[in-house]
Amino acid sequence: METLRVALGDRSYPIHIGRDLIGREDLYGPLSGRAVTVVTNRVVAPLYLQRVRETIERAGGKAGEVVLEDGEQAKCWENVDRICDALLASRVGRDGLLVALGGGVIGDLAGFAAAVYQRGIDFLQVPTTLLAQVDSSVGGKTAINHARGKNMIGAFHQPIGVISDVASLDTLPDRELRAGLAEVIKHAAALDAAFFDWLERNVSRLVQRDRDALVHAIRRCCELKAGVVAEDEREAGRRALLNFGHTFGHAIELAAGYGSWLHGEAVAAGMVMGAELSRRLGLVPAEDVERLRELIRRAGLPVKGPALAPDRLVELMATDKKTAQGKVRFVLLESLGRASLRGGVAAELVSESIRAAS
Amino acid sequence: METLRVALGDRSYPIHIGRDLIGREDLYGPLSGRAVTVVTNRVVAPLYLQRVRETIERAGGKAGEVVLEDGEQAKCWENVDRICDALLASRVGRDGLLVALGGGVIGDLAGFAAAVYQRGIDFLQVPTTLLAQVDSSVGGKTAINHARGKNMIGAFHQPIGVISDVASLDTLPDRELRAGLAEVIKHAAALDAAFFDWLERNVSRLVQRDRDALVHAIRRCCELKAGVVAEDEREAGRRALLNFGHTFGHAIELAAGYGSWLHGEAVAAGMVMGAELSRRLGLVPAEDVERLRELIRRAGLPVKGPALAPDRLVELMATDKKTAQGKVRFVLLESLGRASLRGGVAAELVSESIRAAS
Repeated sequence: METLRVALGDRSYPIHIGRDLIGREDLYGPLSGRAVTVVTNRVVAPLYLQRVRETIERAGGKAGEVVLEDGEQAKCWENVDRICDALLASRVGRDGLLVALGGGVIGDLAGFAAAVYQRGIDFLQVPTTLLAQVDSSVGGKTAINHARGKNMIGAFHQPIGVISDVASLDTLPDRELRAGLAEVIKHAAALDAAFFDWLERNVSRLVQRDRDALVHAIRRCCELKAGVVAEDEREAGRRALLNFGHTFGHAIELAAGYGSWLHGEAVAAGMVMGAELSRRLGLVPAEDVERLRELIRRAGLPVKGPALAPDRLVELMATDKKTAQGKVRFVLLESLGRASLRGGVAAELVSESIRAAS
Repeated sequence: METLRVALGDRSYPIHIGRDLIGREDLYGPLSGRAVTVVTNRVVAPLYLQRVRETIERAGGKAGEVVLEDGEQAKCWENVDRICDALLASRVGRDGLLVALGGGVIGDLAGFAAAVYQRGIDFLQVPTTLLAQVDSSVGGKTAINHARGKNMIGAFHQPIGVISDVASLDTLPDRELRAGLAEVIKHAAALDAAFFDWLERNVSRLVQRDRDALVHAIRRCCELKAGVVAEDEREAGRRALLNFGHTFGHAIELAAGYGSWLHGEAVAAGMVMGAELSRRLGLVPAEDVERLRELIRRAGLPVKGPALAPDRLVELMATDKKTAQGKVRFVLLESLGRASLRGGVAAELVSESIRAAS
């Protein structure tokens, strides 16, 4: 097991990465007499819920559970209300603990419920997908979706810890594994040229679920993300770079209808659009765009968005959270491994970049 | 005009108290080019909305508005969603500003919407009721209600400023003015014996809306509250003392149905119950309970709760946010002007205290 730390003063917390960690009660913190509610979904519950409950009870905690439907559609207010209702029915107080057991959807949703229940209670991330282990479980961004935009309602609420059990990836469908690789590629493209090189050499090992390669990728992503979050928790600056591919990606998800494209798939196509835009602005050569496109393709991810009029995507992007005074700002590549945030991009270039990846 | 400050590091903010402040654009902060959405209700809108909009526009802001129904029932998720929908429809970004124009309900609701919209945007409190000016607009507690309990879903989200225009109290119905006096009495009973003495001498001036007496009471409450909030923003300790009367009071509101008892009325009866409980625990003499009861009566507020079985209130209190490991904790009087928080109170004494004020 390896342990990293997200350094945020009195809100600092550990990220544990390794095999068979779900059953280790020492990683859950003191649970004696504590009300602990596990939030998960119908796909993950049969696989891991019983083991998590047993671990909690062995440590003296009182385990409760809320099992929700699977999929992006679960990130809605009705489910936040359902979690709060379950907590209130069990008379869970401010000293209660929520455990988010599942992928990015469960983490975002349960994290938001923990942020707003009685104005904030503790929560612990137990991510069971690659996407959640490399990205969404770290950094305290929680949210639900709004009909007008993804993650438009949420909170910054840091977990008290992250337990990334790589053994749980064994049960992950191939499509979900690939979706997680999109966020791995994103970390490399936006922040770390050497890691990008490593991915070019090792992407097929990742696709084939080589355990050592997966642990290396998870650890490197968590290191990169922990560093950025410690520096800029509330995304006033540098943290926005982690949204490379996401302005386009969120618009793709929204246009296609939540759930028909997985988040990682939309981000993959979105990164190609972002790279195309960077090239059109004279930032990166065509060769770098091709390297990114090729890596995404080798990861088994889409390099083209859905067949939609570019104008529709441009319109949907206008509600992006990185807007300033109503203007959309884009995360662009300065080079492979170095991103920056820019506003004032000509709409024509944005449309062209979408067309180049459609 | 007098200006106090809530000292919270980089989240510090001013409280302005005085006459005709709503039209002073210098108090709203820099608004040039900023999207500013005013949230208010149908009762307040005809009185002050136009003036607030004009002030915003004079300062170069782009004013929008959301006008909701009046009353405690407005503190629901549907209205949070409605505010977010209006902001998204106008493409308001993270640099937007919400203005809460109204009483405690509008402040709690708009504050919560500001806390969760795009994971948090700025908001400004413009309280127009005595209750909001002396209490709820200060300190960053925001919330909506849940069918199982009041303020059970919310966030700590500090405003960027509070503009308390005492002229707006001229339009306040008598019943609402008296409800505000309950929170004035609460501050004195829990925290300041000298202020309690002052209230005993001046309560009739307050009931008759003497301007100087009102300004004195508002300023003193804000001073007391700002001090407590600066010390304990997230209610880990001392801040809980400001909930004197509220554990009983919330249960009264819930039992009677939101809106039939005003919050301040429920807190008034709740304070008598809390004082009766303090006496039964040997903390204060019967004489102090009588002084409190008499002051509440002279403020035109109820000294008895609704005709309900005490057991029903006890049951409703079990979801109070001050519970620890499932046990309700009570704010009790050590003396008039000094409160403390205690758990482990015998249920029998709680029931007796409810009966003594029913």
